[in-house]
Amino acid sequence: MKKLPRKTITRVLLYIRTLEGLLKEKRYLVSSRQLSEITGLSDVKIRKDISNFKSVGKPRVGYKTADLKKTLENYLLQNHTVHLVLFGVGNLGSAILKYPGFHQKKIKLVAAFDVDRNKIGKKVNGVRVYPLERAPEVIKRCRADIGIIAVPKERCQEVADYIVLSGIHRILNFAPHSINVPEKVQVRSIDFTLRILSLFCDAQS
Amino acid sequence: MKKLPRKTITRVLLYIRTLEGLLKEKRYLVSSRQLSEITGLSDVKIRKDISNFKSVGKPRVGYKTADLKKTLENYLLQNHTVHLVLFGVGNLGSAILKYPGFHQKKIKLVAAFDVDRNKIGKKVNGVRVYPLERAPEVIKRCRADIGIIAVPKERCQEVADYIVLSGIHRILNFAPHSINVPEKVQVRSIDFTLRILSLFCDAQS
Repeated sequence: MKKLPRKTITRVLLYIRTLEGLLKEKRYLVSSRQLSEITGLSDVKIRKDISNFKSVGKPRVGYKTADLKKTLENYLLQNHTVHLVLFGVGNLGSAILKYPGFHQKKIKLVAAFDVDRNKIGKKVNGVRVYPLERAPEVIKRCRADIGIIAVPKERCQEVADYIVLSGIHRILNFAPHSINVPEKVQVRSIDFTLRILSLFCDAQS
Repeated sequence: MKKLPRKTITRVLLYIRTLEGLLKEKRYLVSSRQLSEITGLSDVKIRKDISNFKSVGKPRVGYKTADLKKTLENYLLQNHTVHLVLFGVGNLGSAILKYPGFHQKKIKLVAAFDVDRNKIGKKVNGVRVYPLERAPEVIKRCRADIGIIAVPKERCQEVADYIVLSGIHRILNFAPHSINVPEKVQVRSIDFTLRILSLFCDAQS
């Protein structure tokens, strides 16, 4: 895959996040000017960016919000399908397995792991649950890109070690607890707090 | 509460998000220059912003990442404690009730609602589960700021109607399904997809 400059990626993600918000507000058309007002980035910069993404639409008149969002998502993924593996099939893990949001996107949950014998071997929403110790073998077979940690925080370091051992360099950590991983491994977390801050404050403005 | 300009809020949230990422990468000091490189906003703009937040630290030498993040979070909340109510105590709802991430912050889950008689009356992590129809009364009593929707998508419109009826103007929707609410009501969703895109792409760069 072609490597994209980090600054570009950060801007594109900011655009996508902004477009997501506009869609929620039922704003189906957006101009570079509006994007500029919301993101704080210059109108010129945004128009230059969007033209690079070969998106349809007229900067001043407006782009179709949903189309632009899709264009930007594909630009980031470059037609790659992201393979996820899930660790922990408890409350949160089960919710993630049932999350319908992935289906329209190029994101696929390919395997789940747990230590509970009652869960192992079962299929949840078409995804098989394997014993934790089989992670390295299964992950190599299904070419996983990202490991999702949804275990209690007491176990998240153990699971992180398994993920690294399996050769995955990207971890999405739902446990609000930091994990120690090698330099090369990227860790992100789903930050409920940030979304709540965002919602709380936007409603103030 | 003092209303903050939307553009300022958007930038502050971008800063917080960026600082979150730096902390994950164990970068405990950050300069306005680094923030500028990551966010794409100008160094001058960022230094001007941060000085307004009365944050400690020297722009060029660096700020303590965690301190700056806390300062920005408090700047947004203005010492208000955000009260959340939860709708749906299924897999996801239970996970949210047990989410430890809120405790350090000024965010408090004050009540939960469900239609399942086996859940009603129980306490999960100290939060009582009430029948859905009691939402308006309970919500007024506990002065809730935000309603969280964690019900199956078939029920999310019904629940959204209850939230609006209860006088809440901010909804955090976990169901990847849009809801119809009055103009004045703000809706946000937790977008797993965006975090996965972000993780996938950052690891490329």
